[in-house]
Amino acid sequence: MSVRHINPEGLRRNPAFSQAVVVEQPAKTIYIGGQNGVGADGKVVGPTVAEQASQALRNLATILESEGASLANIVHWSIAVVDGHPLQEGFAAFQQAWNPADPPPAITVHVVAGLGPGFLVEIDAVAVV
Amino acid sequence: MSVRHINPEGLRRNPAFSQAVVVEQPAKTIYIGGQNGVGADGKVVGPTVAEQASQALRNLATILESEGASLANIVHWSIAVVDGHPLQEGFAAFQQAWNPADPPPAITVHVVAGLGPGFLVEIDAVAVV
Amino acid sequence: MSVRHINPEGLRRNPAFSQAVVVEQPAKTIYIGGQNGVGADGKVVGPTVAEQASQALRNLATILESEGASLANIVHWSIAVVDGHPLQEGFAAFQQAWNPADPPPAITVHVVAGLGPGFLVEIDAVAVV
Repeated sequence: MSVRHINPEGLRRNPAFSQAVVVEQPAKTIYIGGQNGVGADGKVVGPTVAEQASQALRNLATILESEGASLANIVHWSIAVVDGHPLQEGFAAFQQAWNPADPPPAITVHVVAGLGPGFLVEIDAVAVV
Repeated sequence: MSVRHINPEGLRRNPAFSQAVVVEQPAKTIYIGGQNGVGADGKVVGPTVAEQASQALRNLATILESEGASLANIVHWSIAVVDGHPLQEGFAAFQQAWNPADPPPAITVHVVAGLGPGFLVEIDAVAVV
Repeated sequence: MSVRHINPEGLRRNPAFSQAVVVEQPAKTIYIGGQNGVGADGKVVGPTVAEQASQALRNLATILESEGASLANIVHWSIAVVDGHPLQEGFAAFQQAWNPADPPPAITVHVVAGLGPGFLVEIDAVAVV
């Protein structure tokens, strides 16, 4: 199995994401459902994108650790932030959670009209081990 | 090939979804495009999320059955509902279509500003056989 | 490896997309992050969906070509267009970029409240080689 993060010539480079990630078989693929700012008690952790994004990233890490993996194994993630709330707080949470030595995943970012009740941010991911 | 639905310690459990699904190779992967409440005649089946979600789920089942699979093979799905329409009707349609004995897929839910003309709900999915 | 584009009986057919795409192992999978109407200089190419969608498709092609692949290798893509902007311009850009002899990918289309600053359209994709 090999995983390569690519940033081909002709596209801008950005330290926050890779343009694409190439996975060669065989690999174990982990499909992670949209994670929100919800703790183990099922309650929303707070009313800001910053708090919720940090918790969603912790949830992603918890799931990955249960499979012997880490955030570094994510090949693509989709981040949705509710309209009117600051995207930057989500990026700041990412920068705190992410080891800058690891090549970042491919990313999709949508500003949505809403999410489940009380949620301001949702992050789903595909990881490969 | 193995497919494992995981709900690691430290995350809330919810019977409606798994936190993640782990797929080990080799596997056949089915990428299903966003299904809407549209029948074989290409017409929208009705003006409610309930009707449209039920039809979208029937379409997913039809696609999967054509590959010898079923809804139970879905590992991740993304549900989009148009702003102002009840998410709960989509969940109710899911509960009717889903066999509760099967471990549920990982899920992403977005409330969007819109979809194609006349559509209130769209469900795409990745399934593994 | 085999890739089959399917349009099962019981679902409408549309030349713009396949209902699903079936991938059998082993395969090389390319996860492409959301592409926007941004050139190599990092600037948004123009204020219309038409211009931005064409550039996003060029970016997808550039990424795929760097792996010896092409748009024809995309198995699923998700297109997000900002509310109030014409979806049709995105489809027109697709029709110009796409070789009609190739079976089209599965597709998801969302109208979103917003995207990153200045972006009107975002296209992510999974490709298989």
